[in-house]
Amino acid sequence: MPTLPARVAARVVADADVRRTYAADAASRRSIPPADYTVVRARDLGDVVAVLEHAQATGTPVVPQGARTSRAGGASATEGCIVLNVEALDAIREVDPLEGYAVVGPGVVNARLKAELAAQGWCYGPDPASADTCTIGGNVATNAGGLCCVRYGVTADWVKALQVVLPGGAVMRTGHRTAKGVAGYDLTGLFVGSEGTLGVVTEAVVRIAPAPDPALTALATFDSLDGAVAGITALRLDRHRPALLEILDRTSLATIQQFGDYGFTADCAAALLVQADRPDHVRADLARYAELLTAAGARQVAVADDAQEADALLQGRRVMSTAFEAKGDRLAEDVCVPIARLGDFIAAVEGIARRWEVTIPVSGHGGDGNLHPSIVHDGGDPESRRRAWGAFDEIVRLALSLGGTITGEHGVGRIKVPWLELELGAAELARQRRVKAVFDPSGIMNPGTIFAREAGR
Amino acid sequence: MPTLPARVAARVVADADVRRTYAADAASRRSIPPADYTVVRARDLGDVVAVLEHAQATGTPVVPQGARTSRAGGASATEGCIVLNVEALDAIREVDPLEGYAVVGPGVVNARLKAELAAQGWCYGPDPASADTCTIGGNVATNAGGLCCVRYGVTADWVKALQVVLPGGAVMRTGHRTAKGVAGYDLTGLFVGSEGTLGVVTEAVVRIAPAPDPALTALATFDSLDGAVAGITALRLDRHRPALLEILDRTSLATIQQFGDYGFTADCAAALLVQADRPDHVRADLARYAELLTAAGARQVAVADDAQEADALLQGRRVMSTAFEAKGDRLAEDVCVPIARLGDFIAAVEGIARRWEVTIPVSGHGGDGNLHPSIVHDGGDPESRRRAWGAFDEIVRLALSLGGTITGEHGVGRIKVPWLELELGAAELARQRRVKAVFDPSGIMNPGTIFAREAGR
Repeated sequence: MPTLPARVAARVVADADVRRTYAADAASRRSIPPADYTVVRARDLGDVVAVLEHAQATGTPVVPQGARTSRAGGASATEGCIVLNVEALDAIREVDPLEGYAVVGPGVVNARLKAELAAQGWCYGPDPASADTCTIGGNVATNAGGLCCVRYGVTADWVKALQVVLPGGAVMRTGHRTAKGVAGYDLTGLFVGSEGTLGVVTEAVVRIAPAPDPALTALATFDSLDGAVAGITALRLDRHRPALLEILDRTSLATIQQFGDYGFTADCAAALLVQADRPDHVRADLARYAELLTAAGARQVAVADDAQEADALLQGRRVMSTAFEAKGDRLAEDVCVPIARLGDFIAAVEGIARRWEVTIPVSGHGGDGNLHPSIVHDGGDPESRRRAWGAFDEIVRLALSLGGTITGEHGVGRIKVPWLELELGAAELARQRRVKAVFDPSGIMNPGTIFAREAGR
Repeated sequence: MPTLPARVAARVVADADVRRTYAADAASRRSIPPADYTVVRARDLGDVVAVLEHAQATGTPVVPQGARTSRAGGASATEGCIVLNVEALDAIREVDPLEGYAVVGPGVVNARLKAELAAQGWCYGPDPASADTCTIGGNVATNAGGLCCVRYGVTADWVKALQVVLPGGAVMRTGHRTAKGVAGYDLTGLFVGSEGTLGVVTEAVVRIAPAPDPALTALATFDSLDGAVAGITALRLDRHRPALLEILDRTSLATIQQFGDYGFTADCAAALLVQADRPDHVRADLARYAELLTAAGARQVAVADDAQEADALLQGRRVMSTAFEAKGDRLAEDVCVPIARLGDFIAAVEGIARRWEVTIPVSGHGGDGNLHPSIVHDGGDPESRRRAWGAFDEIVRLALSLGGTITGEHGVGRIKVPWLELELGAAELARQRRVKAVFDPSGIMNPGTIFAREAGR
């Protein structure tokens, strides 16, 4: 690797063990890190500029990185790269309720921003399941979703403007802080979800909204999958959509129940978790949801009377990842299908699990059609791995055949690169490479992420 | 002009008088049309493809066009161009409340989509003042705003996916219909607001939401501009933001009152129009707004008791354009400034009007900081025109100096091209030209719009 400029060298992580912790993200913790990579922890905009000047001049690949919670592998070290960690750019610079935005560094943890806003009566909507650790920069990079999207939308719906450093060190701004603004192209939406392949986000101007009321929760259990899907349909068509609408299938419920007693009946086919938070209508909305779910065929609907009960109902959902991982390694899927095809999708995944002889609990954001089948397998056994990836491939193709997408909220990362052309087609993929080249002509930004590496790179 | 292929020739408007009606948009009705232009009225996707194949092959400029309500001049004929009108692509193909979208052709009139949705209990938010005539394609092209943006946002907030025909005839799709989707770059936001400079939108998938309650209206009058701005501030910070929050300054009120008696007192400094439409809370919200406005210093607040009274209060606002145009020609400005700078902006415009000896009523979407100063002048008098454009230039620069933008919702079009670099800077403008070249390498799409024509083109 070429000699680093002094400013960059001063930010390099020297300790080998510490350095190693920056090599992998949540999707690649079991992978062997590359032989040659450098970790730079930027402390400010100037550091990011210096890294991208150097990287462009020397043709060094750069992997931008926040809290490494990526489930798609786009934040892990590649051979010969600089891992550019921006967690230390964590200032909440402005909270301006009158203009309706907050200005934050990319290293601000999602939950910290939420807490700071809540203390002032405001909110920021997007809430990935990893909200306690993931950063706004990573949320922007992946256009992160989460549990409350059914009502509050995804990250793209909340980003007004960005500051981005491009390869070569140029600092650009997208979007606008004013309520409206149409001067030239708005490139904000292009950068949101670009997974670090265009530049490094160094500041985000995010929309803020008045805080809703504290949410209350209901848990509905169903004897049939069709009933649960009918429940989701009824709630999506309700005039006041719930703030959260999660589904757990039979295998998910059984896996959680094996892990600990969270009050799920072992014999039901599916469960829905629902939250209401509309100001002045929380109890009335939740009562109406309960009626709609009963009419859809729920065996039982448990409605929380207070925040403590609501929390108890959510416990099972919260331990789910841990419960799955207790059973083995996990390939976490992330497809999204039309609501009308949810039932078909889950039924077909059951067939895929049988054919490939793997366990696949299906759960996720039912209200968005965004499901996370978890392919539980033994990562140390090549045959088990082969079957897991066989099932993975079939699930991705199934989602596409139902009018869905290969990734709802995790991103393409490095894991889903082989499937992207199936969704976009060769012509669109080529067009998107040309868009990338406008900002990153040397192809140094996060190579191998979204797009396959081209020959010689 | 090169010979047109038969399919395109069959859609050419032959009659010279009819053809002439397609030459200009709302910003250029008094201009002399170019000597050489062809008007093609496409009937379907295939027609659009045929035009863009031909145009690319022959290097013919294309001006995409809908209802010609543009106030920035981007939909009017240029020398040697094909005006490609897509008003006939006006099918509402799908309304799918479960998945949360409608699929519409670019020629669908905004108000028609709203009415069709309202009949089923749903709504589409964006409502430009020209909603009765403007089309969704034009709304997408300009990222149109309107009166209800203070609560419902702008067109970009409602567009999920697009079908676009590119120069050469390739049909591309952006975005996704599912609730979430992050497979590759989302180019939707780039095309929204691109003013026909990248391709021709042939289909839009727009988000729909449950219809709000019928709105009720209040009219507040103020003895001082500061009071009116304090009222806007209080309402923007209210937990339940109004659905509409319009301001009219002293000159606007006097001009309307000269035109007819719409109940405005001639001696007040400013008026605010406010609407509430939150389900189950319309009257309570409006009563609270009235209290907040009184506390902010309103002399009087008239609250409508029913839809008929609400309509009467809005009459004055509705006739405003007509009242202004009765006084002379009008240069319609469209800047947007931070809410905190609204008072400074309006006061400074009064000074500009005095210095340039022109009348400039200021009105618009106060709740968004998006104002439309109307420079009333005599278009037939070169000296009057010179003063009007002098004031125009100063107003645009004023908005930028206050942290605002040169255009809030009308677009750059052809009128504001000279000012765009002041806002974006030369480097960003060059970058945006490179983005355009990815989709339109020959530069045939709406040349002279957003970007100045390059030498030789």
